[in-house]
Amino acid sequence: MRYPKGVKKQYEKLVSYSNRGMCLENDINCSNEFYLINDIAVIYKKPTPITVNKVDYKGRNDAVIKEAHYITPSTTDYNGIYKGRYIDFEAKETMSKTAFSLSNIHKHQLDHLSSIYRHKGIGFVIVRFNSLSETYLLEIEKMNDFLANNIRKSIPITFFKEKGYLIKDSFNPRIDYLKIVDLIIKENENEK
Amino acid sequence: MRYPKGVKKQYEKLVSYSNRGMCLENDINCSNEFYLINDIAVIYKKPTPITVNKVDYKGRNDAVIKEAHYITPSTTDYNGIYKGRYIDFEAKETMSKTAFSLSNIHKHQLDHLSSIYRHKGIGFVIVRFNSLSETYLLEIEKMNDFLANNIRKSIPITFFKEKGYLIKDSFNPRIDYLKIVDLIIKENENEK
Repeated sequence: MRYPKGVKKQYEKLVSYSNRGMCLENDINCSNEFYLINDIAVIYKKPTPITVNKVDYKGRNDAVIKEAHYITPSTTDYNGIYKGRYIDFEAKETMSKTAFSLSNIHKHQLDHLSSIYRHKGIGFVIVRFNSLSETYLLEIEKMNDFLANNIRKSIPITFFKEKGYLIKDSFNPRIDYLKIVDLIIKENENEK
Repeated sequence: MRYPKGVKKQYEKLVSYSNRGMCLENDINCSNEFYLINDIAVIYKKPTPITVNKVDYKGRNDAVIKEAHYITPSTTDYNGIYKGRYIDFEAKETMSKTAFSLSNIHKHQLDHLSSIYRHKGIGFVIVRFNSLSETYLLEIEKMNDFLANNIRKSIPITFFKEKGYLIKDSFNPRIDYLKIVDLIIKENENEK
């Protein structure tokens, strides 16, 4: 990334604020880059949606956004293709050692993942329990099973251990979640 | 969309500028909404990527972007899932009656679509010849065939007529491009 002159200080301020919970995102972005470079999969993080109120047009290709707001995304952060399968997921971090609170994830993001599952894609969440240094992948259909049978607003880590998959840290890719997707594809094929 | 007070005039200026070539985009967005509501497919336009330089944080959920720039997207505008298939495409309009100039589309977007094809997704461009009121869908592999055998920097409309598919306008969805995707899926299955 390149920054225009004179905004560095302001930018650092931004980073120190927004960096909270960015490690998982960075790990996933780096893993996706590894997958892309090695032609294993094509999976990208979608840009954060904003609504623009004011723009300065200096020229055809020189627009500076002067006022904009972040808006609630209607979908998840990541999607793409792997072995001909449509992949879609959301990634979240939590400091809790015992449970993942559902307040961390929007209802319409769960709905989105459910419709991906209905259309025969592979939809899941990746949740990192920071205090434990453990990262789990949980398929949306298993998450929905939990939600259908429980009234509590958080998913205990025991559920992730039982029904999800632990993603082991590695050097490159940092978070090799496609190894887990391979297991899911295999299971799906066995069920047929 | 809601606009804060006092920016309306500025916003109108923006619309009148940026509305150029937005009709196809609007038609596709409306068609995607139709597909979504009727649970036919889950296909979204990705947000336009920007890089943010200055943000005012008034509170945890109240950030106003004060300076940002549009950046070149590394992928295409649209992707999603239909009948278990990964769908990915770019949509462009041209005023030309004879050819689609390749200057309208970034090289890395074509590379992206080619890698989608390699990973067994369905990648294409939708091109509307505004002066003719004709909209075509052309698969990336056919576009690549053209590029491999021609040095010219534009694809004549005759090539779209021969190797692409005309998408007929309809009321709802406005641009029923999934009808064409059905044909492509059928053809791919026949080839196996």
